[in-house]
Amino acid sequence: MNFPHQQLEKFTIAVLQKIGCPEADAKTAAKVLLSADLRGVDSHGVARLSGYVRLWEAGRINPTPNIRVVHETPSTAVIDGDAGLGLVVAPFAMKVAIEKAKTAGTGWVSVKNSNHYGIAGIHAMEALKHDMVGISLTNASPLVSPTFSKERLLGTNPISVAIPANEQPPFVLDMATTTAANGKLEILQRKKEQAPEGWIQDKDGQSTRDPLGVKDGGALLPLGGDREHGSQKGYGLGAVVDIFSAVLSGANYGPWVPPFVAFLDPHPNPVGEGLGHFFGAMRVDAFRPADDFKNHMDNWISRFRNATPVEGQEKVLIPGDPERELEQERKVNGIPLLNAVVEDLQALGDKLDVNL
Amino acid sequence: MNFPHQQLEKFTIAVLQKIGCPEADAKTAAKVLLSADLRGVDSHGVARLSGYVRLWEAGRINPTPNIRVVHETPSTAVIDGDAGLGLVVAPFAMKVAIEKAKTAGTGWVSVKNSNHYGIAGIHAMEALKHDMVGISLTNASPLVSPTFSKERLLGTNPISVAIPANEQPPFVLDMATTTAANGKLEILQRKKEQAPEGWIQDKDGQSTRDPLGVKDGGALLPLGGDREHGSQKGYGLGAVVDIFSAVLSGANYGPWVPPFVAFLDPHPNPVGEGLGHFFGAMRVDAFRPADDFKNHMDNWISRFRNATPVEGQEKVLIPGDPERELEQERKVNGIPLLNAVVEDLQALGDKLDVNL
Repeated sequence: MNFPHQQLEKFTIAVLQKIGCPEADAKTAAKVLLSADLRGVDSHGVARLSGYVRLWEAGRINPTPNIRVVHETPSTAVIDGDAGLGLVVAPFAMKVAIEKAKTAGTGWVSVKNSNHYGIAGIHAMEALKHDMVGISLTNASPLVSPTFSKERLLGTNPISVAIPANEQPPFVLDMATTTAANGKLEILQRKKEQAPEGWIQDKDGQSTRDPLGVKDGGALLPLGGDREHGSQKGYGLGAVVDIFSAVLSGANYGPWVPPFVAFLDPHPNPVGEGLGHFFGAMRVDAFRPADDFKNHMDNWISRFRNATPVEGQEKVLIPGDPERELEQERKVNGIPLLNAVVEDLQALGDKLDVNL
Repeated sequence: MNFPHQQLEKFTIAVLQKIGCPEADAKTAAKVLLSADLRGVDSHGVARLSGYVRLWEAGRINPTPNIRVVHETPSTAVIDGDAGLGLVVAPFAMKVAIEKAKTAGTGWVSVKNSNHYGIAGIHAMEALKHDMVGISLTNASPLVSPTFSKERLLGTNPISVAIPANEQPPFVLDMATTTAANGKLEILQRKKEQAPEGWIQDKDGQSTRDPLGVKDGGALLPLGGDREHGSQKGYGLGAVVDIFSAVLSGANYGPWVPPFVAFLDPHPNPVGEGLGHFFGAMRVDAFRPADDFKNHMDNWISRFRNATPVEGQEKVLIPGDPERELEQERKVNGIPLLNAVVEDLQALGDKLDVNL
């Protein structure tokens, strides 16, 4: 079933207002959430809305947070999200990074006491409007085992980097530091299909193709899959995301990161507050004239896009191409939602007296 | 054959002085070069010394460069390496990043007109002495094909991030953005052994296990190996390294990066000057008190190191552990060099009238 994104956005705003969010915050959050559906990251969009509401019911989300800078230097800040929706805390923090960059050349903001912030890319892309490079990282609940570990110690800890161009659309990398995102696994679970080797390990730490492996005490694998294919690199990148997001700010890190699902309790002995994010903004003209940079980015992008493809492939893609194309299509044709998601949203609407 | 690192360092200093480097620069460069041998990245150490000399013979390295800041803001700088040895340009640039961080909280330096800078990690680690996080990136001559590309458009473009701790040794990630480093492939070539799947593609862009594939017009593969295992992520990271190092600074990027080997000519129509690097330094106390941060890093590191390992593995490693252990061992027992490398160094010494 396809829904116009405006309809889903309006519904999301109404739901968030019902749980006590001020209108401006509800609008900000809805826009971030819907950007995931528009860009094809269906696992991070409205499908999660009732999850956020359950966290609020459990007292783990503050609908009226006092988000504030608690420490700063000319190019850095630490922000306390006051247990607010990550969907609201993250845009606030990215704005601070952009403001810092205007005067210091770059701005770097680490955030504690936040919650899930939607897709990483949408926050990084805010910088593009200002001719800046944007960076967005977040930690997340532990689903990933480091190389050689039986235990799950890291989240899928994404990295997003958005870089402006001139005539060409921007370069937008937005990637989990695992071989496969959890959303892809959920699709295989629903279809009852096997996962490729290198995506997951079972509860004993052995490679498995059973997509239920993660639910049965196993784990997602870091990008690379195993040691022979460089999984220590995916693990290392996920670790850097964790440390920048949470050890710099004072949030929970590693296995202490609170779970997104409300039916699992947060760790009884937290090492920090909430979960953490990290944002960066670099003014392009803090390095060279913006037009020079953007014209060379045009050249970079067109050279890579026009590379000779291997047989059977249409073309070489630039990071951000698939998401942008999907966004254009979905803005016209609407957002396809699974029946289970529609039913979940309808139940949520019934409970809060909001029409889908 | 094992050589004390002091002997190799003395030899390197003498060779570099013979080609015209001032003594201070020769010492800086030799220290960076030898750090690769000590830390086990044999492909980036003295084995490359005669390669640097050949580049100088070809007029592509300036032994007395005027390395200078050509643009800056409170937290950024662009540096022109004046075609100097990357082994000298990079320490200069990292120092600028550290100085910027002292006043602005962070410092970010993009470098053009440089050459190969040795191992990425040694430059990032400079920040540790100042209780700063260090970041070091560089582009390199094109050996890697983006996902779906038959052409080689990227180097092995490494990422290094060094993070200080208190009682624990520091966290030091130093990774190529490919599945396997080129050095590992050279070992397989010498041993005439097959490479694992996912490391290389042949000249038609098809997966191959022949380690000679790259020499025969094929390519190294981005971390992930193929699309199903996330190679678009390794490609995206390598691209970010390329853009930060070269499009921000005005160096050559992608397929225009000049080759390290002197027998291959640089691109006839360069898009910039030399190759590029990117360095970052973030003062830990620009975010929170340094002791708080470092104590939490101790906790992070010990939690991960003490994770339950999978059967058959001794323990979970922290990025930087293997290199540090090797460095301790090699400082005592010397650096093992292959016969071919020893002969190459002796020939170089004979030519320049320097005793190994």
